[in-house]
Amino acid sequence: MVNKLWNHIQSVRDNAPLVHNITNFVVMNNTANALLAAGASPIMAHAHPEVKDMVSICQALVINIGTLDEYFVKSMKMAAGQANALGKPWVLDPVGAGATPFRDEVLSELLALHPTVIRGNASEIMALAKANQTITKGVDSTAQSNEAIEAARFLQAIYGAVVCISGATDIVVGPEQTIFLKNGHPLMTKVTGLGCSSTAVIGAFIAVIPDKTEAVTAAMALFSLAGERAAQTAAGPSSLQMQLLDELYALTETDFKQQINISLHA
Amino acid sequence: MVNKLWNHIQSVRDNAPLVHNITNFVVMNNTANALLAAGASPIMAHAHPEVKDMVSICQALVINIGTLDEYFVKSMKMAAGQANALGKPWVLDPVGAGATPFRDEVLSELLALHPTVIRGNASEIMALAKANQTITKGVDSTAQSNEAIEAARFLQAIYGAVVCISGATDIVVGPEQTIFLKNGHPLMTKVTGLGCSSTAVIGAFIAVIPDKTEAVTAAMALFSLAGERAAQTAAGPSSLQMQLLDELYALTETDFKQQINISLHA
Amino acid sequence: MVNKLWNHIQSVRDNAPLVHNITNFVVMNNTANALLAAGASPIMAHAHPEVKDMVSICQALVINIGTLDEYFVKSMKMAAGQANALGKPWVLDPVGAGATPFRDEVLSELLALHPTVIRGNASEIMALAKANQTITKGVDSTAQSNEAIEAARFLQAIYGAVVCISGATDIVVGPEQTIFLKNGHPLMTKVTGLGCSSTAVIGAFIAVIPDKTEAVTAAMALFSLAGERAAQTAAGPSSLQMQLLDELYALTETDFKQQINISLHA
Repeated sequence: MVNKLWNHIQSVRDNAPLVHNITNFVVMNNTANALLAAGASPIMAHAHPEVKDMVSICQALVINIGTLDEYFVKSMKMAAGQANALGKPWVLDPVGAGATPFRDEVLSELLALHPTVIRGNASEIMALAKANQTITKGVDSTAQSNEAIEAARFLQAIYGAVVCISGATDIVVGPEQTIFLKNGHPLMTKVTGLGCSSTAVIGAFIAVIPDKTEAVTAAMALFSLAGERAAQTAAGPSSLQMQLLDELYALTETDFKQQINISLHA
Repeated sequence: MVNKLWNHIQSVRDNAPLVHNITNFVVMNNTANALLAAGASPIMAHAHPEVKDMVSICQALVINIGTLDEYFVKSMKMAAGQANALGKPWVLDPVGAGATPFRDEVLSELLALHPTVIRGNASEIMALAKANQTITKGVDSTAQSNEAIEAARFLQAIYGAVVCISGATDIVVGPEQTIFLKNGHPLMTKVTGLGCSSTAVIGAFIAVIPDKTEAVTAAMALFSLAGERAAQTAAGPSSLQMQLLDELYALTETDFKQQINISLHA
Repeated sequence: MVNKLWNHIQSVRDNAPLVHNITNFVVMNNTANALLAAGASPIMAHAHPEVKDMVSICQALVINIGTLDEYFVKSMKMAAGQANALGKPWVLDPVGAGATPFRDEVLSELLALHPTVIRGNASEIMALAKANQTITKGVDSTAQSNEAIEAARFLQAIYGAVVCISGATDIVVGPEQTIFLKNGHPLMTKVTGLGCSSTAVIGAFIAVIPDKTEAVTAAMALFSLAGERAAQTAAGPSSLQMQLLDELYALTETDFKQQINISLHA
């Protein structure tokens, strides 16, 4: 598995996929830089007169609702619809799911457009499942991560997407297996938009790698390990942000294979 | 006073207030990171269908008109109105006050919505006072900072807000006292949006601390000292930006109490 | 020539021109910081009710179509029209020219408003020429850079603008001469928006320097050398981004004159 994941990382670097992002204002710069550092080419574009054309020339699409408004929501729906029409993979980042009725309504519409992957934190994944006829009613889960896994499995089953719950342990729920990644560092939670950037990197991987569960796992493994390595020497959250991007770019096969912490058990 | 200010800094770190920002595109990333580094949780959201809901779940609101347009102006008015209705504190950053008639008109509308705090540089505070029936007519002030203090006292008296003039000396004008903070470093003026970030940090402090003059003073003391400390080792303005965020996160009680330079005299 | 270029760099530092930017969301922060580091004062504003007023108080205008939409396009046309009416210089960055019909249509409208300078990479400059009745039909060019120079000369002749092709070698095509700058570093291509930032720096130089070919050459020389110097010690692309801004701010006359690599031959 570890060999395969490294091959996927190398494959993104070799193929430099073009990734179309409709994302939030807070993270646009870091997201573009994360994609470049991982070896991909980012495009950010949301204008209605061109958004379908942009999907057509890219290999994958990233949709992140962080600073959504009515115009951007229409852009997102046009882009996701076009991705479907052309059979291109796309990843949904449901930022702030559950925070407002507007977000939940928009997310329902986007889920209906068949995302290839959904990545969120535990509370977003749970909110997404709850807003879409959750099965968690009656499930008496004490551990939040267990509850999130239930929610992720529900979303995976209903929508057919690979679902990634990011957190202290990143959990990738595919149709056939659930994978646990234990890299990362707590200081990463003090940097804005690292989740958003990891979603964009997932976009680069699903652009190139046919097996989407493996693609998401490789993307999250690369990103979390880069963050963990950056945290070793960072003086604070802003140094970590810079060093994480440097690590994404420079991470070697040897370091990856020695330091990756992956498991099929929680 | 210094003990009290440190307790306020600790209080923000302990309480991790949720702070809603409607701010400009230039600084969204750094603003979110400054809030995280100070111990708060940032939310950036401006969509009309959700902006009131977001105010409802947050402890404070930050409004910054830097890259305003008609849509954002409506968002700002909805959010500030909701903050008033719910009795939540909010801070106004009047970026570019006096630069165009449009800005001054928008600022008049926002002032009418009772900001808890106003923070700007000397020229913005003076422009704000002038645009709102200034008393400075007839005041023959040679020193710009004196003129700005007059303007701040006028705004404080008319609108009831705590007014902060940031600059080489940061000046906090409350209903009962005026406080002078002499930390900071000239290189900070070569980084975009540090004023905007300090406004957001003020948002975190007024979310948690009942005495708003103390809240603003503590926020500005933390921010300016973090900048001053960052400047000691920065190779240039971009290093300073990074190190300032690291310092915001890591500043200790001992360093704060030894290095803070606060006075009740100019 | 090298003496003259350094004098221009010093002149921007001394005059601190106010530069109005209507640019894309990805690079707004770095663009503002690049302008500050080069000694200029940035303004970012796009609201229709104030965009002409902002042009009026600035010394130059920067238009970058990266994340364009209908609202921003109207802002750009209002601003460029006002710059023309007032005889103020402006620079166009045709991000993604050729990628979609929408971009090409918008670029045609902007070209009709007489940009003082156009800066893009080779493929953008070629796309811009092609979309505007290219002469490259029938030109059998094997080397891409040669083809781009042909396209730049065409655009220069038709629109009267100085045209800059940025790349491993930056090429400045003026009405009377073509200048080749061989500073820079390949790692710069792994940072988002460095081209956009260099366009903004060009804005600062055309604000102050009457000879626009020299202005563009000085701006690109400063920017590319800053990037080259940053790359010597950068651990990766994100370090390079930070160090480039520090170098822009701190570059000395001695280092500039020793390290600049300029030629009138390819």
